[in-house]
Amino acid sequence: METAELRLELAVERKAVEQNLRRLLNGEKGIPTRLKSAMRHSLMGGGKRLRPILTIWTWNAFVQNRKNRGSVSGDVMDVACALEMLHTYSLIHDDLPAMDDDNLRRGRPTCHLAFDEATAILAGDGLQALAFCVLARAGGPTAGGLVDMVGRAVGPAGMVAGQQNDLDAEGVPVTAALVRLIHRDKTARLLAASLSCGAMLAGMGPAVLVPLEKAGLDLGMAFQVADDILDVTATSAQLGKTAGKDEAAGKATWLRVEGLPAARRRMNRLGRRGLRGIEAALPAGPARDRLLAQSGLMWNRDR
Amino acid sequence: METAELRLELAVERKAVEQNLRRLLNGEKGIPTRLKSAMRHSLMGGGKRLRPILTIWTWNAFVQNRKNRGSVSGDVMDVACALEMLHTYSLIHDDLPAMDDDNLRRGRPTCHLAFDEATAILAGDGLQALAFCVLARAGGPTAGGLVDMVGRAVGPAGMVAGQQNDLDAEGVPVTAALVRLIHRDKTARLLAASLSCGAMLAGMGPAVLVPLEKAGLDLGMAFQVADDILDVTATSAQLGKTAGKDEAAGKATWLRVEGLPAARRRMNRLGRRGLRGIEAALPAGPARDRLLAQSGLMWNRDR
Repeated sequence: METAELRLELAVERKAVEQNLRRLLNGEKGIPTRLKSAMRHSLMGGGKRLRPILTIWTWNAFVQNRKNRGSVSGDVMDVACALEMLHTYSLIHDDLPAMDDDNLRRGRPTCHLAFDEATAILAGDGLQALAFCVLARAGGPTAGGLVDMVGRAVGPAGMVAGQQNDLDAEGVPVTAALVRLIHRDKTARLLAASLSCGAMLAGMGPAVLVPLEKAGLDLGMAFQVADDILDVTATSAQLGKTAGKDEAAGKATWLRVEGLPAARRRMNRLGRRGLRGIEAALPAGPARDRLLAQSGLMWNRDR
Repeated sequence: METAELRLELAVERKAVEQNLRRLLNGEKGIPTRLKSAMRHSLMGGGKRLRPILTIWTWNAFVQNRKNRGSVSGDVMDVACALEMLHTYSLIHDDLPAMDDDNLRRGRPTCHLAFDEATAILAGDGLQALAFCVLARAGGPTAGGLVDMVGRAVGPAGMVAGQQNDLDAEGVPVTAALVRLIHRDKTARLLAASLSCGAMLAGMGPAVLVPLEKAGLDLGMAFQVADDILDVTATSAQLGKTAGKDEAAGKATWLRVEGLPAARRRMNRLGRRGLRGIEAALPAGPARDRLLAQSGLMWNRDR
């Protein structure tokens, strides 16, 4: 698939995701005004919308040969948006003064600067709860399985573990094993879960889900190596967040373990393995091609 | 039911809840050591275990005349423990410096003092995710409904809304309507959800759930008025948390709106209405009597 064509499809899908995110947030009655503004500030503040698009396009790959080819049901769109809510909650909390203490996110002031620290903590807490509500409502017969799977990916042995290990590793000598663990938990688990959600909603079982998760973890790790590289090679304006922070904070990155050239090779190796895994797990067709092209951009990227 | 007998039954149930909480936390593999210690510090640090006991005893009231009379299945015990995890996460975040900035909880140092602020934020985040996982796993066919119902109760239009409004009301003139709203969202919603979980697991529908929720909200509001009164009349040693904080922080309480005698009358009125509601919603029998006796202690209490 040509990059220009892919970028157009991504822009269309991103817009659909954002419309649905706005609908879901506005549909919740009783959220205090200031809290809702803070949630909206972070949720609607741009972003690649990578996780929801992975969910929708994975689902598309399985249902493209069925009757509802090409269309996206409200349910898969809602589940996709729940994943974006979880990602956004994690960004809000990661940016807090007690954590990474960042002031720029998606090109705008971080939530605790635009509002205040207490509101930012609560906006994150509220987005996490809302995400699980949306998963439960949209999951149909697989609601329990979806909540459990996603909950593990973002929970204390998943994304939260990654953030804890990431903070605890600051400034101490890092090993390859530790960086791999942090990248997997902090980033790759939720990205892999995004693929898994699409497959679960399409009714797939372990024969698909297990290899697909492995491919998602590889792609997610490639994505995070790309993030580490961009932190060094890109500008804050390009990234929409503060560049050069990893080195200043003494973060555990592949660049610290093995330097830039080796990290690039690692990124390409992981990324290519992830693509092969997706190719093997999904039925051939235009939807898989689109997902593969999009997955390639997860590591071949400039922002 | 005699108070001494009730206290014995409560102690037995509390021990069973704590054993299961420990089992659930230890059963999660891959939680980083420091994060797990922080979660354990707050989760296993005492407490009345009120929410899980409400769930289990409500369930008991419905199933007492069936074959499995008196026994508690793993599922209802797990759901009950998920509610305690949600309560604990809210305490950890409420105690943070950016929120209520408290240093004593359940008679021990708050999580961010025993560990650090970042770890406390993550321990709360992790407990919330784990709670939803446990609900999803233990809910069986009603998993989706349970997660949605509980998620609403603790979400941005529930418990999180209550905390936001509570913070925003500090030091400004308060009205009765605002105090009622804060108490309902901050405290009563999760307590009502605890009763609802027991009824949902027993297979009850809206004819029971709607009036039971109303009774739970009344009891929860009576519980919170009692909390406000104790903040003024009890010592920190009695409470296991800092006494006198509400007045110092200018919190929105009934005492500020109408003074101590009127607040006491309000507490008794709400509490009695809640008891009548439970009496009407649950089948008669020893399990209901025990729940009623326990519910009376929610507002007639000295800690």
